[in-house]
Amino acid sequence: MMRSKVLSLVARVGSNRMMSTATKLTTVEVNDKTGIATLTMNRPPVNGLNLELLQDLKRSIDEIEGNKSRGLILTSSSSTIFSAGLDILEMYKPDKDRIRAFWTQLQDTWLALYGSSVPTAAAINGHSPAGGCLLATSCEYRVMVPNFTIGLNETQLGIVAPQWFMASFLSVLPQRDAERALNQGRMFTTEEALKVGLIDETANNKEEAIEKCVAFIGTFAKVNPLARSLTKQQFRAADLQQLQNGRKEDLEKFLFFVNQPAVQKGLGFYLEGLKKKAKKQ
Amino acid sequence: MMRSKVLSLVARVGSNRMMSTATKLTTVEVNDKTGIATLTMNRPPVNGLNLELLQDLKRSIDEIEGNKSRGLILTSSSSTIFSAGLDILEMYKPDKDRIRAFWTQLQDTWLALYGSSVPTAAAINGHSPAGGCLLATSCEYRVMVPNFTIGLNETQLGIVAPQWFMASFLSVLPQRDAERALNQGRMFTTEEALKVGLIDETANNKEEAIEKCVAFIGTFAKVNPLARSLTKQQFRAADLQQLQNGRKEDLEKFLFFVNQPAVQKGLGFYLEGLKKKAKKQ
Amino acid sequence: MMRSKVLSLVARVGSNRMMSTATKLTTVEVNDKTGIATLTMNRPPVNGLNLELLQDLKRSIDEIEGNKSRGLILTSSSSTIFSAGLDILEMYKPDKDRIRAFWTQLQDTWLALYGSSVPTAAAINGHSPAGGCLLATSCEYRVMVPNFTIGLNETQLGIVAPQWFMASFLSVLPQRDAERALNQGRMFTTEEALKVGLIDETANNKEEAIEKCVAFIGTFAKVNPLARSLTKQQFRAADLQQLQNGRKEDLEKFLFFVNQPAVQKGLGFYLEGLKKKAKKQ
Repeated sequence: MMRSKVLSLVARVGSNRMMSTATKLTTVEVNDKTGIATLTMNRPPVNGLNLELLQDLKRSIDEIEGNKSRGLILTSSSSTIFSAGLDILEMYKPDKDRIRAFWTQLQDTWLALYGSSVPTAAAINGHSPAGGCLLATSCEYRVMVPNFTIGLNETQLGIVAPQWFMASFLSVLPQRDAERALNQGRMFTTEEALKVGLIDETANNKEEAIEKCVAFIGTFAKVNPLARSLTKQQFRAADLQQLQNGRKEDLEKFLFFVNQPAVQKGLGFYLEGLKKKAKKQ
Repeated sequence: MMRSKVLSLVARVGSNRMMSTATKLTTVEVNDKTGIATLTMNRPPVNGLNLELLQDLKRSIDEIEGNKSRGLILTSSSSTIFSAGLDILEMYKPDKDRIRAFWTQLQDTWLALYGSSVPTAAAINGHSPAGGCLLATSCEYRVMVPNFTIGLNETQLGIVAPQWFMASFLSVLPQRDAERALNQGRMFTTEEALKVGLIDETANNKEEAIEKCVAFIGTFAKVNPLARSLTKQQFRAADLQQLQNGRKEDLEKFLFFVNQPAVQKGLGFYLEGLKKKAKKQ
Repeated sequence: MMRSKVLSLVARVGSNRMMSTATKLTTVEVNDKTGIATLTMNRPPVNGLNLELLQDLKRSIDEIEGNKSRGLILTSSSSTIFSAGLDILEMYKPDKDRIRAFWTQLQDTWLALYGSSVPTAAAINGHSPAGGCLLATSCEYRVMVPNFTIGLNETQLGIVAPQWFMASFLSVLPQRDAERALNQGRMFTTEEALKVGLIDETANNKEEAIEKCVAFIGTFAKVNPLARSLTKQQFRAADLQQLQNGRKEDLEKFLFFVNQPAVQKGLGFYLEGLKKKAKKQ
């Protein structure tokens, strides 16, 4: 299953032995004191979710499911971006086969993360728009560092967050807040996100964020892991089944929409803007 | 489509040219500075939702959908009543054909408002029981003037708010609050409504309420209108489909219930009470 | 229907005549001033929900439905335990026929309580874990005495709260709080339960708890009972139908799970612990 393990090492962080494996674009480190795995996205500069990063994420989640970790903490190797969301380059003037593989992989990765049997928490150590927010809200707990933003801002980019993005959002926010934020494409500051319940805690930095995620996962210490995992999967079953039963339709809907000339034009303008911004800096 | 336009005029309100069209019982004014349409219910004395007002509401919503307005603000020409809800006279000793047309029109009007592609907000400038509350909660935002009341008080009248009234209510309130208020037929004061989340803001008067609705619609300024509208409709799809798929059953259920002797008797007592109250004043 | 009425008496409590009937393990007292029935669980020492207590609960609920009571208040004859939940002895090394009857009865009792046409409130005068919490959250209102705990702690016992336990929980708590508490098997103190919304009020003792339940039921004084009951049942229809349509599947799922050697072992350890605890006291 883990076809692309590139790296497998044993490192020492502080006083705890860490085992670390990595695919190309993600790293998994299991703290052998706590038994908790940290899954780090590492696709500079912004952890844009392209086909390969999504594949590596899925492999790392599968690895953590398989190695009896006590929990999964999702974070970023960047100091300013958790994940910038779907890589626009996958959607702009797309290759016909690759874009199908891309979206199918996004579905698979979400199904694996949202339905993960282990406790999951996100240490959000940077901006987390769109697909970045999807990943964060697919976890069971969120700790975020100040001065960043998070939200499903798809409407601001001229695209539509699919139904299962909404389901992840609704698993965290009240219906009224969820709909309004989705329609507005609203990005919440760390403080606003805490107030509305989009995140659970703030932390001064990545290390503290991870510590707080560890503490959350620690609340399951006395819980039977099998009963816990069945409970979580039963709770999330309706959301998971809705995508599982409608995968093909969801793919076709995405392809139809993204190939609209107006959407392509919008994505083109957006990319142009990103290039200009990059040149100025 | 707009078969019954009675009036079409160009008015000047403040410094902004306003275009106004009207059906018999509603008025639509589009502010050409903001591009936002104000839809005013104007069936004195209480904006009772009879067949004709519901038809005119639907036509006005269709007009606003068609004229590329940036938003829809629903309000009342009365200074004390937003809408008193369904006109009891449509339900008491009803004509067999007319009551079918009435309920079918209520379904159509709700489907148009709840599923409207443009941003919607209610400037609630008076009491808003039952069907009035349905209209308000079908919008995306609610601003209410103090010293009025709002709620789905059907159980107090001996009738049952149908499933889609509940869906609108639940799109705004937490499940626990929604169920309890529905069972109690509870009317909330402006302050109580704000606290529970049934409204979003208060305003000192109608003008300020409309200003705040304009500000809410302004939050979509940078949002792609097509992406926004698809997002909203996807979010509301389950609620809309439930009525669309069950329209006939919903109609028959209503007819069966309303024709029960006990319900007719209750509506008779209620009408009697209204008449006595009117005479005293 | 009321096959096992053991006792039927007329008592005087304070100045109000009370009519009281009892099955073996429950008591029903109707206050003839308020018209409200108090249903007391009376299976010492902990109101463990075995087949017989569940049968008697169902019979008492049916009796209250049938005798035109204005409301149902569920409470316990113990001064420290509301209900300790499902009797572990029904699940540990179970008799093949009896465990089927047990689970089927639990389904029936829940369907009767959650779908009850009369207003329901729980006066929680003691600890209320697992099945005890199910009973409490199946009511429309909860008043709890301080220094006790409440929650669905199944995962701590190595078992899984079925989907309809979750539905009852979700009728009261926001999705985020509900899922997390279920996964953690979290027991809330009275104060924590109030803060999260799992209960509605606190009371200093059982009498005050019952008074507050009476006050809640009093909020329906001006409401048409038929319209109220149809409204409640429509609101809860989806939850009720999900179990009604999947009863057999739910039973088989429970039997499969409870008969797993690991689950039996866990239940055995738990019973062993209870015995040791009992000996020490």
